[in-house]
Amino acid sequence: MKLTEISGGVCAPKGFKANGIHCGIRKNKIKKDLALIVSDVRCNVACVYTTNLVKGAPILVTKKNVADGYAQAVIVNSGNANTCNEGGVEIAEKMCGLVEQYTGVPAGDVVVASTGVIGQPLSLEPIAGGMADLVAGLGDNSDAAAEAIMTTDTVRKQIAFSFTAGGRTCRIGAVCKGVGMICPNMATMLMFVTTDAAISSEMLQRALSADVKKSLNMLSVDRDTSTNDTFCVMASGLAGNRQITKPDADYRAFCKALNAVTTAMCRKLAADGEGATKLIECRVRGAKSLKDARLCAKAVVSSDLVKAAMFGSDANWGRVLCALGYSGAKIDPDAVDVVFRSSAGEVEVCRQGRGVAFSEETAKRVLSEQEIDICVTLGNGHYCATAWGCDLTYDYVKINGDYRT
Amino acid sequence: MKLTEISGGVCAPKGFKANGIHCGIRKNKIKKDLALIVSDVRCNVACVYTTNLVKGAPILVTKKNVADGYAQAVIVNSGNANTCNEGGVEIAEKMCGLVEQYTGVPAGDVVVASTGVIGQPLSLEPIAGGMADLVAGLGDNSDAAAEAIMTTDTVRKQIAFSFTAGGRTCRIGAVCKGVGMICPNMATMLMFVTTDAAISSEMLQRALSADVKKSLNMLSVDRDTSTNDTFCVMASGLAGNRQITKPDADYRAFCKALNAVTTAMCRKLAADGEGATKLIECRVRGAKSLKDARLCAKAVVSSDLVKAAMFGSDANWGRVLCALGYSGAKIDPDAVDVVFRSSAGEVEVCRQGRGVAFSEETAKRVLSEQEIDICVTLGNGHYCATAWGCDLTYDYVKINGDYRT
Repeated sequence: MKLTEISGGVCAPKGFKANGIHCGIRKNKIKKDLALIVSDVRCNVACVYTTNLVKGAPILVTKKNVADGYAQAVIVNSGNANTCNEGGVEIAEKMCGLVEQYTGVPAGDVVVASTGVIGQPLSLEPIAGGMADLVAGLGDNSDAAAEAIMTTDTVRKQIAFSFTAGGRTCRIGAVCKGVGMICPNMATMLMFVTTDAAISSEMLQRALSADVKKSLNMLSVDRDTSTNDTFCVMASGLAGNRQITKPDADYRAFCKALNAVTTAMCRKLAADGEGATKLIECRVRGAKSLKDARLCAKAVVSSDLVKAAMFGSDANWGRVLCALGYSGAKIDPDAVDVVFRSSAGEVEVCRQGRGVAFSEETAKRVLSEQEIDICVTLGNGHYCATAWGCDLTYDYVKINGDYRT
Repeated sequence: MKLTEISGGVCAPKGFKANGIHCGIRKNKIKKDLALIVSDVRCNVACVYTTNLVKGAPILVTKKNVADGYAQAVIVNSGNANTCNEGGVEIAEKMCGLVEQYTGVPAGDVVVASTGVIGQPLSLEPIAGGMADLVAGLGDNSDAAAEAIMTTDTVRKQIAFSFTAGGRTCRIGAVCKGVGMICPNMATMLMFVTTDAAISSEMLQRALSADVKKSLNMLSVDRDTSTNDTFCVMASGLAGNRQITKPDADYRAFCKALNAVTTAMCRKLAADGEGATKLIECRVRGAKSLKDARLCAKAVVSSDLVKAAMFGSDANWGRVLCALGYSGAKIDPDAVDVVFRSSAGEVEVCRQGRGVAFSEETAKRVLSEQEIDICVTLGNGHYCATAWGCDLTYDYVKINGDYRT
């Protein structure tokens, strides 16, 4: 199947408009803090949320609103997570009410999300005050929406692809913010995907739930699962393909396009992890099971020791072996090979569980690049998995030592 | 039961001598790198080891040597973990052989451990060359042994207590190095406890296995379980008490003394965590089960976000709630209270899952101390647990960004 990257983010698929503004939740006036995505038509919708037992109030409201399988708009604020505070659910519901008041989309078809510090009251006032401007500016503004949901993100994260399903050209686009499902600052991972492919809510949920296992769940910035993680896909059906209602070739085409979006976003999220200077990708091959492959890959990118070594461009592969050993996967330590790879070349550091002689100079050069692959071959099966993370830096500590004040 | 702290470390109990020297494994000549603890008599012994599937070669040899329940000496080197290298088991066995050659203690009664970088060959030469000096200096030298097992530890860690069992005064002492069961630098947690209490190997193992669940397993510096963790207790029986062979009052007295040792060591290990400026103690009360209490306490001290906030003296209690939420414990978020406490006072920050107004000035003062208690009341049961950790600092990243080279 041909998959082509296109511009436009969440507005690339037919029927979607977006905008983002500064309404005043944040004190810093150059930082946008309110985003809106609206579809011309009612969409089929599917969501997945954080597994944290402490859940943001917006999640409770969104769950209720999408329970019927439909949604038509997304409203998101940054600067406050609307979590562990008084009256959070009521505020989230009022945000949906404002969308209805200003756009005509019923409040019960609105996905609502918040991101920022938790435990502080969220005032409706700036949001209500900003709605007229927000709605007036709705258009091909995925840029503004992507910017308005950022917290400590340093770059906007959006992407779009076109693909073919049922003989029709379909589009899928997304905006997201991080900097991880494993959240660096309680500011949570949010991702909103739009598509004009016609696909039933059931198949959309199936695609989403399957995809998240190999995309967002394989991403770690700091192993802290946030309270507000929300990953939502809305399908307008305006591409005109016959609706996808079963796991056929069209469904597989859609899943492939969705995975292209989520994988690209995982890489963007990891590369922009708080304080990060490097994207770390761990590719595990030869595992006994898919679960083992995933456990191993995730353990390696999650290890503070591996992350600190990558920051220092130090080929301390023993830490990779250590992480594999405590990952929970069934591994045979004597069958493990490890290679570090980047655009500057590659260096084999461990074969059959033992160190191999390597040039420290080459290793330093390979590890000094901005994208590092840690390639692990377990040698006791044929399953593979990839996980994404970033290095651990002084700036991570700096950002998080004084995030709130 | 009266428990009195005494001096002497591992040499406080009757029958134990120790020493530590620089033999040349480390390049830095002022750093000791070889330790020996020897008992006058054969001891009952019990050990617990890392759960990491990648295990240091010395662990394989120690396991074999203590399988019969007896040991009489401990030899430990720092500077090299003797793990994931060629011939590691043979080297570890030769280290035991050197102990036999120089002290007469049979090689099969020697506990052997190594700590340092993994994946590098360990040469027997400096060890063999140092044995004569090491043995000649055996005596009341717990200080030297504690120093010789240090890696990035900044202080020696030893302690001893006297207690009463079977009407006799018994003593228990220990040396250990860190800086965590959850290891900061692949350098591993090692702890060696001596006692002159008479206690069977079976009861010793039972006491050790029970204690580790509430002591070392509740400690985290960076969530990286090392490959070489070894926790060993040797009992000489020279105190003359009737041997403890069942779970009676004497056994409980011994367990209490053992827990005093391990708790003190956990605090020392956490306070000296790599780069740490603060000891973090999380006390959880009101949990539905002991397992839940432990999961919660451990999750809080393990969270990089909580650790970074503590470094910055930032009362970002939302991160504590977040960690409780993903800990895996069954909690009711709306029943959680959180108080930060230190020698400078206390500040309540969260009641029934909601933020309470507090003075930022007071919070800053409380959190600026070197020991911080995070007191969590879950409000859905009556189980308690305590976990220990440290803050996450620039120095942690610095130390681990360039540990190997």
